[in-house]
Amino acid sequence: MTKKKLLLKANGRIWIDVQDGAFLGYGRIDLLEKIKELGSIRQAALEMKMSYQQAWQLIDEMNNKSKEPLVISSRGGKGGGKAIITDVGEKAILQFKEFNKAFQIFLTSYTKNLNS
Amino acid sequence: MTKKKLLLKANGRIWIDVQDGAFLGYGRIDLLEKIKELGSIRQAALEMKMSYQQAWQLIDEMNNKSKEPLVISSRGGKGGGKAIITDVGEKAILQFKEFNKAFQIFLTSYTKNLNS
Repeated sequence: MTKKKLLLKANGRIWIDVQDGAFLGYGRIDLLEKIKELGSIRQAALEMKMSYQQAWQLIDEMNNKSKEPLVISSRGGKGGGKAIITDVGEKAILQFKEFNKAFQIFLTSYTKNLNS
Repeated sequence: MTKKKLLLKANGRIWIDVQDGAFLGYGRIDLLEKIKELGSIRQAALEMKMSYQQAWQLIDEMNNKSKEPLVISSRGGKGGGKAIITDVGEKAILQFKEFNKAFQIFLTSYTKNLNS
């Protein structure tokens, strides 16, 4: 009788850096997508179970590291704190998702490799 | 005048899972290599600035998750606590390093992609 083969799984995570550190990662992209969906940083933070301040810090960091902001928001006023994702933000979301898709394909193919 | 282009860098880390969780990662591979070099878990732990107990736990976990141990050690005796890396351990080191090499190639190529 042969021993059951040990199944190995290639795993990992990715992010995008700029010259001065981390720029985009899974959490930030989730945040951008929630803001896009909800039109509000406060609502997005709530759904992601983070504080408004935390969400703001992440956005501020992304905006500062980019040449142009990814998120534009207006405080208060009639609508009360609307936030929108700019074209640069949309591009960042897409770019990260494509990078992650390529990475998942790499992992799947490498998992086969590990077990062959 | 054109704006300076934002340089994006694809980054990430990888590890290998088995059915019941994490099996090999950068830290564990470093530990295996140090043990191989020094022939001692205690010395390897020291160089890696971790406690002997921590090192033992990592090795124990790897050994338990594998069908055959990656590290064999003898406590005390004349030589006093010698440790050796088995063929299975050697294979694990090589396998992880090749996986990481492929990942670094993926990241380099994707960085070009991000900036094109």
